[in-house]
Amino acid sequence: MGFTIQNVLIPTEQGYETVDVQIEGDRITAVAPGLEVNGTAIDGRNKLLLPGFVNAHTHSSEMWQRGIIPPRPLELWIAELYDFTPLEPEQIYLSALGTAVETLLSGGTTVVDHLVLIPGQEEETIAAAVRAYREVGIRAFIGPLIQDESITSGVPSGGADVEHEPYLRSTQATLDLMQNTVETFHRPDEGINIMLAPTGIQLCSDALFQGCVELSDRHTLCRHAHLLETKAQKLLAQEKYGCSAVEHLKQLGFLGRRTSLAHCVWLDDADIEILAETRSTVVHNPLSNLRLGSGIAPMLKYRQAGVNIAFGCDGAASNDSQDLLEAIKIGSILHNITDLDYRQWITPRQAVEIAALGGATGLNQAEQVGTLDVGKKADVVLYDLTSLSLLPRTDPIGLLVLGRPVQAVHSVWVNGQQIVANGAVATVDMEQLKQGLFDHSQWQVNRQSPMMAQMEAHYRSVMQLPQ
Amino acid sequence: MGFTIQNVLIPTEQGYETVDVQIEGDRITAVAPGLEVNGTAIDGRNKLLLPGFVNAHTHSSEMWQRGIIPPRPLELWIAELYDFTPLEPEQIYLSALGTAVETLLSGGTTVVDHLVLIPGQEEETIAAAVRAYREVGIRAFIGPLIQDESITSGVPSGGADVEHEPYLRSTQATLDLMQNTVETFHRPDEGINIMLAPTGIQLCSDALFQGCVELSDRHTLCRHAHLLETKAQKLLAQEKYGCSAVEHLKQLGFLGRRTSLAHCVWLDDADIEILAETRSTVVHNPLSNLRLGSGIAPMLKYRQAGVNIAFGCDGAASNDSQDLLEAIKIGSILHNITDLDYRQWITPRQAVEIAALGGATGLNQAEQVGTLDVGKKADVVLYDLTSLSLLPRTDPIGLLVLGRPVQAVHSVWVNGQQIVANGAVATVDMEQLKQGLFDHSQWQVNRQSPMMAQMEAHYRSVMQLPQ
Repeated sequence: MGFTIQNVLIPTEQGYETVDVQIEGDRITAVAPGLEVNGTAIDGRNKLLLPGFVNAHTHSSEMWQRGIIPPRPLELWIAELYDFTPLEPEQIYLSALGTAVETLLSGGTTVVDHLVLIPGQEEETIAAAVRAYREVGIRAFIGPLIQDESITSGVPSGGADVEHEPYLRSTQATLDLMQNTVETFHRPDEGINIMLAPTGIQLCSDALFQGCVELSDRHTLCRHAHLLETKAQKLLAQEKYGCSAVEHLKQLGFLGRRTSLAHCVWLDDADIEILAETRSTVVHNPLSNLRLGSGIAPMLKYRQAGVNIAFGCDGAASNDSQDLLEAIKIGSILHNITDLDYRQWITPRQAVEIAALGGATGLNQAEQVGTLDVGKKADVVLYDLTSLSLLPRTDPIGLLVLGRPVQAVHSVWVNGQQIVANGAVATVDMEQLKQGLFDHSQWQVNRQSPMMAQMEAHYRSVMQLPQ
Repeated sequence: MGFTIQNVLIPTEQGYETVDVQIEGDRITAVAPGLEVNGTAIDGRNKLLLPGFVNAHTHSSEMWQRGIIPPRPLELWIAELYDFTPLEPEQIYLSALGTAVETLLSGGTTVVDHLVLIPGQEEETIAAAVRAYREVGIRAFIGPLIQDESITSGVPSGGADVEHEPYLRSTQATLDLMQNTVETFHRPDEGINIMLAPTGIQLCSDALFQGCVELSDRHTLCRHAHLLETKAQKLLAQEKYGCSAVEHLKQLGFLGRRTSLAHCVWLDDADIEILAETRSTVVHNPLSNLRLGSGIAPMLKYRQAGVNIAFGCDGAASNDSQDLLEAIKIGSILHNITDLDYRQWITPRQAVEIAALGGATGLNQAEQVGTLDVGKKADVVLYDLTSLSLLPRTDPIGLLVLGRPVQAVHSVWVNGQQIVANGAVATVDMEQLKQGLFDHSQWQVNRQSPMMAQMEAHYRSVMQLPQ
């Protein structure tokens, strides 16, 4: 049994067309005007149907710290983040639910969760997130965030002789954990996918990267990492490798068409060429790049070089929300100030393609989702074009991308299952979720981070800021 | 009679405090814990009270074209905007309502409408906007957008011998129109204020600026204009005056503490000094500056120089919404990429002060509104801290500014009158507004603008873009 969305607007090459869309099981089976109703009839009048977007980089448990970390660059921001990271698996469950809900209500059907692990409760952390995503029904790619160097190693030494604490877990123990995680949780047919996701060159050894490459190749899994988010990381790569981080990752075999890389702000032209040639994906997180002062990723250059790109919200402590439409809007218009020639600027239709198909491509899912083509899985979103924020009637995609849609998502299906109906997530008890978030938190200001205090003077010195 | 908001969170110097707030008539009369209830009691538990923000620059009728103009720089974007500008006063009324509603639901209590006039129906245009703002009850500053040069004059000649059509109305006729407008509509005690608002140096003669200075000084009115929004305008100022636009406006007497200037992207240090010295206000419109590729206004420099700043949404065709919280968020975090020293970055609390008191100051209203001080007019906004988007509980102002609040505005009062209650605008029939916007519009793509076609080749040549 399936359903048929009747008289719904979909984008065509030239404009829009009003059609019926049939869905049977988990697949789109027909798209044409005047189809017979198959199963339930759904009224698509004054609505727009688009493929679901991919929230291609986030850290769900950062939701617990959204709004509270002061304006600061990544290296100091992360010190405070880690000092106050949630320590109960129940919190991981709640913030994964919250991340899924906000993603769904802003047009996303897939989430990439670069999941921060509770030390000593790594498997419980992953289990809690998996439980949340299964309950909601969103398609999830979970990349447990792994590293094998301690946090102070992420700042360049600037030639100083700096000692770092050893990391709490050995490289081999981390790889064993990942092997177990893959066996226990990786169920792509059920919408739960495990990725190999070392945090990035700033905190990972070559051995960890190589172990991830080996494991991901053995199981045909996706790989994910942060890459050159900040100027400090670019300096660090030179100190560490004597070559660019991209070149080094290529040598380690980490790049490729199953690899997506978050941020990519500080790449040069040779680096961009390597990403294009290896068919790696860049995940653009424009809001966190502004919030942390990281810079503007050269997205127009990536497009010109043929590099696949996608959009992410990044974790909610560096954004500080999970509104994918906001990330798409800012990720589209931000680059207009980097190139005087407006013919290169990202159009709203291109933005939708980046968010849907670009996201799917970076997860090796372009054959499965990302467009409204017959035969693809039904990960689709129905927008209500009579929402005040999408009125008056102009160009629906233009207004969806460039406007500020509020309560615009009417229905969402993932794998043919309806998850959002009439603007509400059907699989989550929203009052209970809000109560859970409320109960596990308190209003506060002026938190003091010991790690931030420890790192600040060195950071300012290396970055040549006045003390 | 008045009302008392009980047990509400307000910001203090160090953090937050739970207090009662008494309002009598149009004024805040007491702020302290444990007050007696005066009039109606309002439950402020789990809510945050802030002074209302100022949407310090917009053009309400652009709402009719939001989402539809492709990515393009101001000079070509405006050509298309003008080719399809609304021509019925009923549309002006509806888009002013829509602008007021979106402003209110994102924390604004005052709107500055730089109102595009329908040729030949100038007075009807102003009357329609005034009617809308009176009905809604938002505090309005209406600056009829005037000019006395035709649109092609706004692009630098680049030394070419370019002819321009004369503008449709003489300078004197425009000044007479403004004199009548002031007499007919300027009623500050009723929340309707007329401003003198020449569009900017790109389309206005010295005589028009001087006439505006004279009229505004005679009636103690605010002045408003666009200023150096684009690189092209900076080139144009040099061609036109042989000095900077700011220097020229100073000579004309246009600057001063009742003058607010939208954009100010392309000012140099000497210009900034002039703004500080004349106590003029800069209105930052970060979203339209990105959308049109205008650049990043040097807001951190303005702050360091002591220039008062405010936030605006700009017209909805260059944004393409009227969500003030979105403008405040992007207007805060955008500058983190312009200065490596995070100690200069705008904090969420500073952003709130810019949006409320900064906005009020630019309208010569700092004595009246912009803070929660006893004696000030009650233009206040109550935020629901149990909205999912403001959970978990962290730093409420941090999350309000840096997050993406959805349905977070619970109640709004302007001049002590409640306009928003339980998240809905009480003074507007929302279904009727949506129907009106729907009925006067149609979905469309690929509009062709004759003026854009006429101007593009010259624009590309002057800006040294390939043809």
